[in-house]
Amino acid sequence: MKIAVDAMGGDHAPAEIIKGSIRAANKFTEITIILVGSREKIMECIPGTGLPPNMEIVEAGEMIEMDEHPAAAVRNKKDSSIVVGTRLVHEGKAGAIVGAGSTGAQMAAALFGLGRIKGISRPGIATIIPTLHRGKLLVDVGANPDAKPENLLQFAMMASIYSELVLGIEKPRVALLNIGSEEGKGNELVKEAYELLKKSSLNFVGNIEGRDIPAGNADVIVCDAFVGNIVLKTMEGLASSFAKLLKEKLTANALRKAGALLVKPGLKEFAQDLDYSQYGGAPLLGVNGTSIICHGSSDETAIFHAIRVAKECIERGIIEKIAMEVEKFGQINHDKT
Amino acid sequence: MKIAVDAMGGDHAPAEIIKGSIRAANKFTEITIILVGSREKIMECIPGTGLPPNMEIVEAGEMIEMDEHPAAAVRNKKDSSIVVGTRLVHEGKAGAIVGAGSTGAQMAAALFGLGRIKGISRPGIATIIPTLHRGKLLVDVGANPDAKPENLLQFAMMASIYSELVLGIEKPRVALLNIGSEEGKGNELVKEAYELLKKSSLNFVGNIEGRDIPAGNADVIVCDAFVGNIVLKTMEGLASSFAKLLKEKLTANALRKAGALLVKPGLKEFAQDLDYSQYGGAPLLGVNGTSIICHGSSDETAIFHAIRVAKECIERGIIEKIAMEVEKFGQINHDKT
Repeated sequence: MKIAVDAMGGDHAPAEIIKGSIRAANKFTEITIILVGSREKIMECIPGTGLPPNMEIVEAGEMIEMDEHPAAAVRNKKDSSIVVGTRLVHEGKAGAIVGAGSTGAQMAAALFGLGRIKGISRPGIATIIPTLHRGKLLVDVGANPDAKPENLLQFAMMASIYSELVLGIEKPRVALLNIGSEEGKGNELVKEAYELLKKSSLNFVGNIEGRDIPAGNADVIVCDAFVGNIVLKTMEGLASSFAKLLKEKLTANALRKAGALLVKPGLKEFAQDLDYSQYGGAPLLGVNGTSIICHGSSDETAIFHAIRVAKECIERGIIEKIAMEVEKFGQINHDKT
Repeated sequence: MKIAVDAMGGDHAPAEIIKGSIRAANKFTEITIILVGSREKIMECIPGTGLPPNMEIVEAGEMIEMDEHPAAAVRNKKDSSIVVGTRLVHEGKAGAIVGAGSTGAQMAAALFGLGRIKGISRPGIATIIPTLHRGKLLVDVGANPDAKPENLLQFAMMASIYSELVLGIEKPRVALLNIGSEEGKGNELVKEAYELLKKSSLNFVGNIEGRDIPAGNADVIVCDAFVGNIVLKTMEGLASSFAKLLKEKLTANALRKAGALLVKPGLKEFAQDLDYSQYGGAPLLGVNGTSIICHGSSDETAIFHAIRVAKECIERGIIEKIAMEVEKFGQINHDKT
């Protein structure tokens, strides 16, 4: 099994990307990791001991910057690391691509390079968010707003399969993110999506409100990308603001500093429980190949886990299962109507 | 000046509502507080010393439950506390109504009982959210999803006035909540709203993302009620989950418990900084009268501050200023097109 990694994408690329890749290569000796990017820049980050035997480099001279228009950049920069890496997947030379660069570009590269799974009208990004009861999936957090009810249904179906096969949750509870728990609440989009989800064969548990997300009351939380993106970033922003404020308060005087020293292991555990990096990347669901999207700020640990997630997606045949289910699913929904 | 308070609405009604009202009556001796609700139930909560001289009771035999359909309940229960209290404002017998019951019912009561300010197409609720740099306004967090771009513009205008007059912020920075900071990002609604805001006379600073909310980078954050409601509740849910997890981690063993004791004042300050209740209620902007909507879980402190906010709204003539601005504003925008 080979996994391609975009060595050039991300706030801490290429150093942290390469560190994470080396860690994964050493841990999962049965896989080969292909670093995609400028060979010269990659070699500068390789330790004196050299690359592990199960790592390769594929040259890609260009890279897509964060502020470029994703679709245009993907079309114009055919030699960019994310386009080349995605091409490896399309050509069967790699089983998955992992990237931490521009999310839009990675999505565009996958759409153009891999295409959609038959029957899927729009791919979605499912990200894992930390809650009081393990990490849960929030889908869609992508860059395509103005979703249709059918899109939300398909996001739910795909994320449910992912939750079951990769996260090991039996009969994942699927909930619709809404402004009230009762049926009939919300905007036009979610009202129609509610009806579709209710009729589906998914384990749909109804609406949940924002305050239920961190409580972990659902395994798959479905929403439009506009809402999902804002919720995700609000949670990240709040976590970082809390951390900043807490640190300020706990080090305001000598007494508190002494106390902070005693509770330090607790604070560390607290931070670890809320740490995004342990969950690895977010799968781009619905494209015809495995593409794992990492946070721009990904460090060694995040990349390591993203590669682990990519490996599990391949091993457990996520793409095939989605393709199979979307066919069966269409059939079921067709029967019901 | 008289301020009506719905004594029956809220999770901790009537006890906490009455406590908060008495505290406000004792502090602001120049105003009279009218408790609206069941005289019998109110009297059970009045301490032996009796009501302060500047407090009155107005009987209202019914109350609207949280699960009732707001508009229908307001129409059918003409003797409910929130309807009676709102009527007092309409009849000029009170300058404002403060309530912590069903938000939808308070909004419906205001719409039916007070009507909209001329030129305002839809009222919005502006709530204060704690950030690293004071509390900022998030608007709309109401119950009416599917807003139009014009609604967002008016929310921005009204919240900007409120921010200036009640929160004392000069030239409030108005931002549009979006999934990217660049112009042209987002769904159809925000793209069109962006254009309107850019053309307006407001101090529009462009798009902000979810992660910028807690950082306090804007004074007024504008969004559709669907997004606003979800963001607000996600923030509340996250704060409460963080508190729970932190407590668990800091009391896991004897050593940590000792440390926790030393940092306790710091933790208390931390909690206070994030406490919603200090900010009082959220103004329902755009109706022709002052209606302050409190969180369902409001305690004595929250009610006290909500009454303070109501008093400031009246003193500073928010309604009149909005009416004046909406006329001028329409004029300015008309000139520009």
